[in-house]
Order: sequence, then C-alpha cells, then structure tokens
Amino acid sequence: MKAEIIAVGTELLLGQIVNTNAQYIAQGCADMGINVFFQTVVGDNAQRIKDSFDIARQRADLIICTGGLGPTQDDLTKDALADYLGRSLYLHEPSMEKIVKMFESRGIEMVKSNERQALLLDGSEPLTNDAGLAVGAAITQDGTHYVLLPGPPKEMKPMFDNYVKAWLRTMMGDVLPLFSKTLKFAGIGESTLEHRLIDLIDAQQDPSIAPYAKEGEVSIRLTTRAASAEEGMAKIAGVEQQIRSRVGEYIFAAEDIGLEVALIRLLSERGLTLSAAESCTGGLLSEMLTAVPGSSKAFHGGVVCYSNALKHGLLGIPMELLEGAGAPGAISAETAERLAEGARERADADFALAITGVAGPDPSEGKPVGLVFVGVAERGKAPEVHRLQLSGSREMIRLRAAKAALHRLWLRLGR
Amino acid sequence: MKAEIIAVGTELLLGQIVNTNAQYIAQGCADMGINVFFQTVVGDNAQRIKDSFDIARQRADLIICTGGLGPTQDDLTKDALADYLGRSLYLHEPSMEKIVKMFESRGIEMVKSNERQALLLDGSEPLTNDAGLAVGAAITQDGTHYVLLPGPPKEMKPMFDNYVKAWLRTMMGDVLPLFSKTLKFAGIGESTLEHRLIDLIDAQQDPSIAPYAKEGEVSIRLTTRAASAEEGMAKIAGVEQQIRSRVGEYIFAAEDIGLEVALIRLLSERGLTLSAAESCTGGLLSEMLTAVPGSSKAFHGGVVCYSNALKHGLLGIPMELLEGAGAPGAISAETAERLAEGARERADADFALAITGVAGPDPSEGKPVGLVFVGVAERGKAPEVHRLQLSGSREMIRLRAAKAALHRLWLRLGR
Repeated sequence: MKAEIIAVGTELLLGQIVNTNAQYIAQGCADMGINVFFQTVVGDNAQRIKDSFDIARQRADLIICTGGLGPTQDDLTKDALADYLGRSLYLHEPSMEKIVKMFESRGIEMVKSNERQALLLDGSEPLTNDAGLAVGAAITQDGTHYVLLPGPPKEMKPMFDNYVKAWLRTMMGDVLPLFSKTLKFAGIGESTLEHRLIDLIDAQQDPSIAPYAKEGEVSIRLTTRAASAEEGMAKIAGVEQQIRSRVGEYIFAAEDIGLEVALIRLLSERGLTLSAAESCTGGLLSEMLTAVPGSSKAFHGGVVCYSNALKHGLLGIPMELLEGAGAPGAISAETAERLAEGARERADADFALAITGVAGPDPSEGKPVGLVFVGVAERGKAPEVHRLQLSGSREMIRLRAAKAALHRLWLRLGR
Repeated sequence: MKAEIIAVGTELLLGQIVNTNAQYIAQGCADMGINVFFQTVVGDNAQRIKDSFDIARQRADLIICTGGLGPTQDDLTKDALADYLGRSLYLHEPSMEKIVKMFESRGIEMVKSNERQALLLDGSEPLTNDAGLAVGAAITQDGTHYVLLPGPPKEMKPMFDNYVKAWLRTMMGDVLPLFSKTLKFAGIGESTLEHRLIDLIDAQQDPSIAPYAKEGEVSIRLTTRAASAEEGMAKIAGVEQQIRSRVGEYIFAAEDIGLEVALIRLLSERGLTLSAAESCTGGLLSEMLTAVPGSSKAFHGGVVCYSNALKHGLLGIPMELLEGAGAPGAISAETAERLAEGARERADADFALAITGVAGPDPSEGKPVGLVFVGVAERGKAPEVHRLQLSGSREMIRLRAAKAALHRLWLRLGR
C-alpha cells in the first residue's frame, strides 16, 4: 500500500507550528508496513485542498489527511473531500449528541458552528474522537482510501492508534508486517561507513540497509517484512553479522539511542562512576549526560572550569601550567590530563573526562579554532590524552568535542 | 512571490525525524513577505524528486528544497534538479578545496564520494555552507527560482539566513523591502502578553504585530514595508512605544537574541562576572551561557554538583544540610542559597546562580517533579531564593529552570 499524508493548516505554511502530526502518522505507517512516498502541507483553502487530493490520488492508494475538522470557517477538509468525491455531508447524530452534552455540562451556550464538527461524508465510516469533539472519517472510493483526522495532536494520536490502524488492517488484507533494527556507530563518518559497506548496500534486497547521520552520530537501519518477530529478527541477524564483521568496532548500540545513553547504561551496569571537567564545551558534556533519566547513578557531575582561576581553584591545576611565558597553557595536553585527574579525584569517581580547546570564533592562546584536547582519567591507571582538530561552527566544535570525549570513554571501557 | 518548500529524505517519510526545516524556512519566507502555499516531503528517489519539482513548478515560482546534498548515494537532489532542468554538474573548486582541507586537518583519508558535496549545477550561484561541507545552490530558469539547501538544520539555517535571504531579495525586485524589529520578553506568558495587547493586535494594519513563543521565551515581531530603513523604523517606533507603555517591564531585548545573550552583554558592559552551581539542570545553564561567543569575559564557569558529595566537596555545603532525618535536603531553599554563595565565593565572581530541583521523571527526596529552587548570590549582599513549580517533560523542566534563573539575575541587575 502506498500512502500520502496531507496536513491541512495555514499555521503550518506560516511556520507557526511544526508538523509533528506527519511524523507521528509516518511512523505509524512504517510500523504497519505501509510505504509513505509523499507528505504534503496545504493551507485552509478549499480549492488547494482539492488540488492536493487530486495529486495524491495519482500517486497513492491511501490518503491520510490531518487538520481542518474543527468548528470554524477555516476548517474545510470535510467540505473539500465531499466536493471532490461528489458526496454530500450529513449530521452524525451520536457525534452531535456528544457535542451538545459537552456544552451542557460546562454550562456554556453552544455556538451553531459547532455542528460542523459532527458532519460526516455520506458512506464514510465515523472515527471516534476520544479527546475532542470533531468526528473523523474513513472512506474508500475508486480504489483509493481516504482517512480524515483532526489537527490537534492530542485528538489525532488516539484516533489514529485506536481506530485508523484497525481500519487500515482490514483494508490491507494479508501484507506482512515490517520489522527493523538500528545499529548506532561512533568514531566513523557517514561516508567512510558507507564506503566500507557499499557492496552490501548496493546488493541489498531484503532486509533493506539504510544509513543515516545526525548530530555527530551515524546509524544504519535494517528493515524487513516477516510473518513473526522471530522470523524478522532472524532475517536481520544475517546482514547484521556481515556488518559487524566489517565495522563492528564502531557499533555502540543495536537500538536507536545516543552515545551518552549507551555510556550511562554501561557505567551503571558495571557499577562505575564518572565525573567531568569542561572548559571549551562549557557544560555541554555534563548536560548531555544528565539529560539521560537515571544518570545520577553513574554521573557525579563536575566542573565547568571556563576561567583559569576555576581550573586552579577547583581542580588544583598549577597557575604556572596555565599562564606565563613558555607555559603549555590552558589548551594543552598537560592541562587536559591534569583536569581529568583533578575532576576524577575531587568526585572520587572511577573515571573522568576533561575537555579543553578553542571553540571559536576566535583563536585563543595563539592556538587555532577547532584544536581540542580530551583527557580520560581512570582510578589507579595512567590518564590518556587525545588531540583533535575539529571543524565547523562554535556550536559544532563544542558538540563534536563532547561526542569525541564520550567515544573515548566508550573505547576505554573496552567496548 | 509564491513559494513551495520541498524537504527530501526517506527518514522524514519513515517518521524518524520531524520536518523542522520546513517550519524554519516557512517562518523565514513569512518574514520576507513571501507566501508559502504548499510544502512537500519526498524520499531519496530521483524520479520522485523530479516529479515533485514538476508539480511545484506549476503552482509556485520559488522552490526551496532542503536535504539530499550529502556525500552518499542516497543524496540525489542536485542530480535530480540538474536532470530536470537539463543542466550538467561540475566540481566547484573552492568547495572541493574546503573538503580536502578538512580531511587533511583531521588526518583522515578522504573517501572519493565526498566530491559529490562540491558539485554545482551549471549556471547556478553557490551558497556557502558555514557549518558543513555540502555547497548549496540557487538558480533561476524559465521564471522559476530554485534554491537547494542541505538537510542538517545546523547547516541549513545559517545558509538560509546568511545567503538565501539576500539572493531572494535581489530576485524579488521592486517590492518595497520589509523591515522588522523583534521585542523579546521574559517573565510573562504568551497568552497573558497577547491578552494585554489584544486590542493592538486586532487593530493591527501596518506595522503587523506577530507574537511567537519558543523555548521558554516570548517575542513580538513588528514588521512593515518601507522605502528606507529610516522610514521603516519610524513606522515601527510608534507601535513599539505603545507596547512598551503596557508591558515594557518584561522586555529584555529589542532584537532577536536569547536571554543568555542579553545577560552576557549586560554583565560585560558593566564589568561584572558570574558563576553557577547546577544540580538538576546538570550543566544546561552553563552550556547556554558559554554558547555565547565572548562569554568568557563575564562567565567564569561553575560546578555541576549532581551528586551530594560534589555539593559538599566542591562547594562546601554541610552534609547535615543535605542528608539525614529532618535535613532540608539537596532540593531546598537552604541548599539553593548555600550553593549560590559557594559558587560565587569559589569563583570570586560578582554574582552566582544556583539551581536545585526535581527534573523527573521520578520524584526525589519525597519532593514532586517540577519543584525547583533558584538561588541568586551577589557580592556583599544577602542572597535570594525563588521557589518554582514547573511543568512539562524532564527536558522542559530543565530548560524552564535555566531560563528562570537567567531571568532572576536579569531582574536583580535592575533591568
């Protein structure tokens, strides 16, 4: 089944809200094994909504529409579809009763326009709105399935999950459901990863192999259709094994989680603790780690030692190391090492990460933008320091430095 | 000018990511007075991308496309447009040099496929990518303008703001240019702000008055068309004055900057310094402050005292205050006050902010999710503490707590 999602609403075209509905419906379709080939956003204009139906009907056999079911004159989706399909609208009594009762219970007089929320296309199936007043609709005509959902996510989501999915399943008949698995990578770029797997990707049939990159992490999604979860996972396991044999050392998770989540879990499992000293990342690394619910078990916190005075005062770095002619300076391997040791000792943690560098926009200590040192300290062992030359904006350098530090600890933990 | 936004990416069709790019571009177009009538999402498929261009060309004279400029075989947007317009692609030397240099500086071997990121359509204008490697393109053919932007928001946004807007302005010709001014508010909600200004908003003609809310801050954008900047600003000044007379005490900036930027500027101007102690926000406040270029002049850093041991060890909070029967606990007004004092003293700063609370998902110390204490310390003066009960997800509570702390300092500074 080929689907198209149409979101109706001028507020989307003006950029006042983000189209999260399209994502939710797309995810639901993917889970059911329905291919979404296009998404469209159109404003509250009857002619343009009809034009969108006309284009969608030529490239999809399922059109899921969200928005424009409310009481106002701007809510035109039902009128537009009725007109497009040559059907009339009628008042759906159970929906109307619900509306009348709601207004009575609140002691508010019902404005007549609210009746519009109880209208249904002739011959359509009503879709119950458990969280609001506008009734949804599903109808099939000339081999094309149309689904009309309300726009507010609080109403759309339960209607989609509780009623649309069941309706679609009866429409789909015996298509097999989709199963997928995501492999997450660190320490390898998207292009290098694809290069190492290009023959597999080119020859892919089933499961499909799809690489993605976002925010300093790369992932591969393996997807297949199967009669059962066991059969699906067995089909995926073969390709996963081939990928692991080539680039397994860069895989940090076999599910769609960030490196910070994987690290917090690993540390927690092993009963290990971590602290941090951050100069150029200014708290970003700590913020990423503490964004993970339950992180307090493994992460103690640390010092945002933005100034040299704090590097000295809170972490005991000698001022001779930081300043003065001939000193290595705050941005140096020596300082990174000492910061990591200092953060580890102060927090009495098993490990500590330290980051010091030049995030930009201007060079510092005569050192170039993007130069970053990552220190890793471990209880009872010698610390290690890594020198990086990162590129991008101030924001990107900070993000890449934090991700690189997480990756260094991941490697140190023997994973 | 009628525009259509096309986002290219199978991950959008699978619902793996939300199409925030469409919102950003739509907002930018609205600001420039360009009407967006449709948005489309299409997958990484050359034929379907070309089909989308063909449909868009019939209903828009500006097509802004985002995604599919990367190095992999899935990145097909340039190829599809070149094919659609009957143009060839060539290697843009400056972009290629940048790519080669980046790989050299990182000491990584460049995979050949990265060359794809330097390809340009014959006759197109290159759009510089300040945050990544893929060059963008703008081209006009048969009266239709095409703009190709990268997919990652970190690359797309600066390219759109810094290069596309200027290009579009030259294309728009003799329409009077738009002038706008943004007033930023803190300490007042969107609905209250709108309520206080509703008669102005309802009666608005020129300049237009548009309220927005995002990430814990509210703004109002005043926009008008005028022959010159002086004329435009004069038209805006009258409405601005009316707004200031009603809600001026909540305005922290008359330009589109965050509260953290306004604070860093104000502290720097006055030669004042700041440090921080963060428990539940885990580094977010420090990260926001240090994200501002030049922040090191005013912000010293601080302590991410996630564990009680660090609150005690680094900031000298007595363990009797933090733990044990009858103790106020880590999440208390007393601790917030001591944390602020400790962070101020350790950094020898003029001010310090402290945040301790329950970000969730679970209660802590028997205290409810969303309970947050903000401490403000000032050299030579008594500290103050504010008790907040915030709502939302873990992420939102952390963000709102950090913004509330910034706002408290803003008020303390007498602004």
